[in-house]
Amino acid sequence: MYIEIDFNSDEAIYMQVRNQIVLGIATNQYQEGESLPSVRQLADSIGINMHTVNKAYHVLRQEGFIRLDRRNGAVIYMQEDKSQAILEMQKTLQVILAKAVCKNISRGEIHQLVDEVYDSLTGGKNA
Amino acid sequence: MYIEIDFNSDEAIYMQVRNQIVLGIATNQYQEGESLPSVRQLADSIGINMHTVNKAYHVLRQEGFIRLDRRNGAVIYMQEDKSQAILEMQKTLQVILAKAVCKNISRGEIHQLVDEVYDSLTGGKNA
Repeated sequence: MYIEIDFNSDEAIYMQVRNQIVLGIATNQYQEGESLPSVRQLADSIGINMHTVNKAYHVLRQEGFIRLDRRNGAVIYMQEDKSQAILEMQKTLQVILAKAVCKNISRGEIHQLVDEVYDSLTGGKNA
Repeated sequence: MYIEIDFNSDEAIYMQVRNQIVLGIATNQYQEGESLPSVRQLADSIGINMHTVNKAYHVLRQEGFIRLDRRNGAVIYMQEDKSQAILEMQKTLQVILAKAVCKNISRGEIHQLVDEVYDSLTGGKNA
């Protein structure tokens, strides 16, 4: 598992870890059922605090991306909570699209951006 | 200016303040050239620390939504940085759409969500 942290970013390190694991699942780098490294291993390999990795894993569990298991540690496990995910997405989009409206980014430009990013994640599949 | 903070949210309070001001600008509640309350006024009215308001205002300035002025304090000022905003949006969408892909939200469903949220912000204008 390769995770790169930008220590100069405004974004909290645990969120950077969380985001990169979600990106890895979306792009099929990590598959359902696969174990993530232990908290200690990942903390050592990135050079961050164990508490930070722990926090990232707990957010991922809360969001239904992994389960935490006494024997296998953190395991990729996609919870079937699509309607919950849609509700959260709606809330997040509100802030992002508000910013877009302020900056005169048109509806068409937003749709185009969505397509570009979606293609980059899925390799153009799932049209 | 009415700002409501969810003290139980995982989201940092300064980001909640920032988001609500951006939403207010997008929905024309606050207009270009309008002064925001002083740091002290806003902190008192919400019941949060002055440092937190200060941080929100500095993020808003950095993102090109306000200017800070010795005489008028924080003033809504839309910086013409559309291409920069598009780049940032692309980066943010990557994480959000990765989550959508993991949760089996289809491309069509994402476009529909974008339209719904966009309409709710602009009142159906700017089609």
